[in-house]
Amino acid sequence: MTRWKITIEYEGTNYSGWQRQDNVPSIQEEIQKAIYKFCQQKILVTGASRTDSGVHAYAQVAHFDLDYGDRPLNGFDLMKALNAHLRPQPISIIHAKEVDEDFHARFSAHEKLYTYRIINRNSFLTLEQKRAWLVMNDLDVEAMKEASSILVGEHDFNSFRAAECQAKSSIRSIDDIRLEVNNIGTVGGREILMHVEGQAFLHHMVRNIMGTLVMVGQGKLNKQDVADILDAKDRAAAGVTAPPDGLYLVKIDY
Amino acid sequence: MTRWKITIEYEGTNYSGWQRQDNVPSIQEEIQKAIYKFCQQKILVTGASRTDSGVHAYAQVAHFDLDYGDRPLNGFDLMKALNAHLRPQPISIIHAKEVDEDFHARFSAHEKLYTYRIINRNSFLTLEQKRAWLVMNDLDVEAMKEASSILVGEHDFNSFRAAECQAKSSIRSIDDIRLEVNNIGTVGGREILMHVEGQAFLHHMVRNIMGTLVMVGQGKLNKQDVADILDAKDRAAAGVTAPPDGLYLVKIDY
Repeated sequence: MTRWKITIEYEGTNYSGWQRQDNVPSIQEEIQKAIYKFCQQKILVTGASRTDSGVHAYAQVAHFDLDYGDRPLNGFDLMKALNAHLRPQPISIIHAKEVDEDFHARFSAHEKLYTYRIINRNSFLTLEQKRAWLVMNDLDVEAMKEASSILVGEHDFNSFRAAECQAKSSIRSIDDIRLEVNNIGTVGGREILMHVEGQAFLHHMVRNIMGTLVMVGQGKLNKQDVADILDAKDRAAAGVTAPPDGLYLVKIDY
Repeated sequence: MTRWKITIEYEGTNYSGWQRQDNVPSIQEEIQKAIYKFCQQKILVTGASRTDSGVHAYAQVAHFDLDYGDRPLNGFDLMKALNAHLRPQPISIIHAKEVDEDFHARFSAHEKLYTYRIINRNSFLTLEQKRAWLVMNDLDVEAMKEASSILVGEHDFNSFRAAECQAKSSIRSIDDIRLEVNNIGTVGGREILMHVEGQAFLHHMVRNIMGTLVMVGQGKLNKQDVADILDAKDRAAAGVTAPPDGLYLVKIDY
């Protein structure tokens, strides 16, 4: 029995999210199907992060145990085989390697990086449709940066989690939030990226933070309001939930 | 009568290209339809570049003449109105402004920048499907850079134009070719960008140059071969035509 760690890239638009659910397509199930086609075994694949419907990943990580008998199998060949079965879906195994049997995609992770991507301009998206959140009003990014600093560190993020979040504790630690602005194109559009790092996040936490910071950028909330929202420990206090389109799981450190 | 200059972004996958043709969707025709919906006038829109089917644009430029009577109309409102009619197609007017009546989108252009995008890795594309050329073999980018220098300057590019190219002369001038390499993701993929600048290009010229340089990167051709191909002035001498997916019209200077 060998434990495999796989790194997966996907375009999440047409999936109900990472987690397998009845009657809807999920990333987890498609990978399990590909493994079944490869070796005719029904194997559970455990992911590091349950990304929501429409959320993308550059590097989701998962593990599974495979008994392939005495036949030799290396990571490159396993990756190629699974990808052949995943085609033409927008799900691609970009790396596979053997790991120790105590490796766990979720519990061994000690840092995750999510990036949320906004396109800030007055015209609709084309190449970035479903790959970014279009915000038309001009955003005050300096105000967003200042307000974001309130959220760094260990806090009770109850105000920033989804009503249906099932985590027992709403205490989480954000190790870093960084806002990056890039000019795009030749006529004034901007890309605004929010990079958020932490060991674990609550359901919708990154999207709720993004939605709240956009309200700061629009002048509807200020830094003190964000402090008050955090203190309230009440979901009703926070801003809108940013759409899934702009959210990317970028990196997981072990 | 006012002449308008518009800058257009599009995702070209599902269009037969810029140029209007019977029975197939084109960018030009969709914009002409949007103008018709806006003012009930059948107006010809003249583009700077006839991008092929599947080729994308961050900043195609076009002009047209509009008689809007005595009513006031500014570029921002025109852009908003046309975009409302273009929705939800992946075609977006990102800028519109009044120009002098002697402005011509094609003939007034003095420099165009095309960028060709390759993803160089061993697994299939997901987020970049139809937005880049996947090349699986590792490419020797230094060899590609060296060989590309052969093509800079004024030359007869007959070896690099499509059989159906209708330009009278195959003499063109490439002002700059620059190759850029970016690491992507966390497990070894690379993005290789080729930026090509010149006043005008022959049909398929950028894609034929890219296809030939990739053969250099794969070790199938060398710098001297590229010089010989250029000298041959014969399409049969050059390498493969790179797919349209990776080609972007990025900038036009006037």
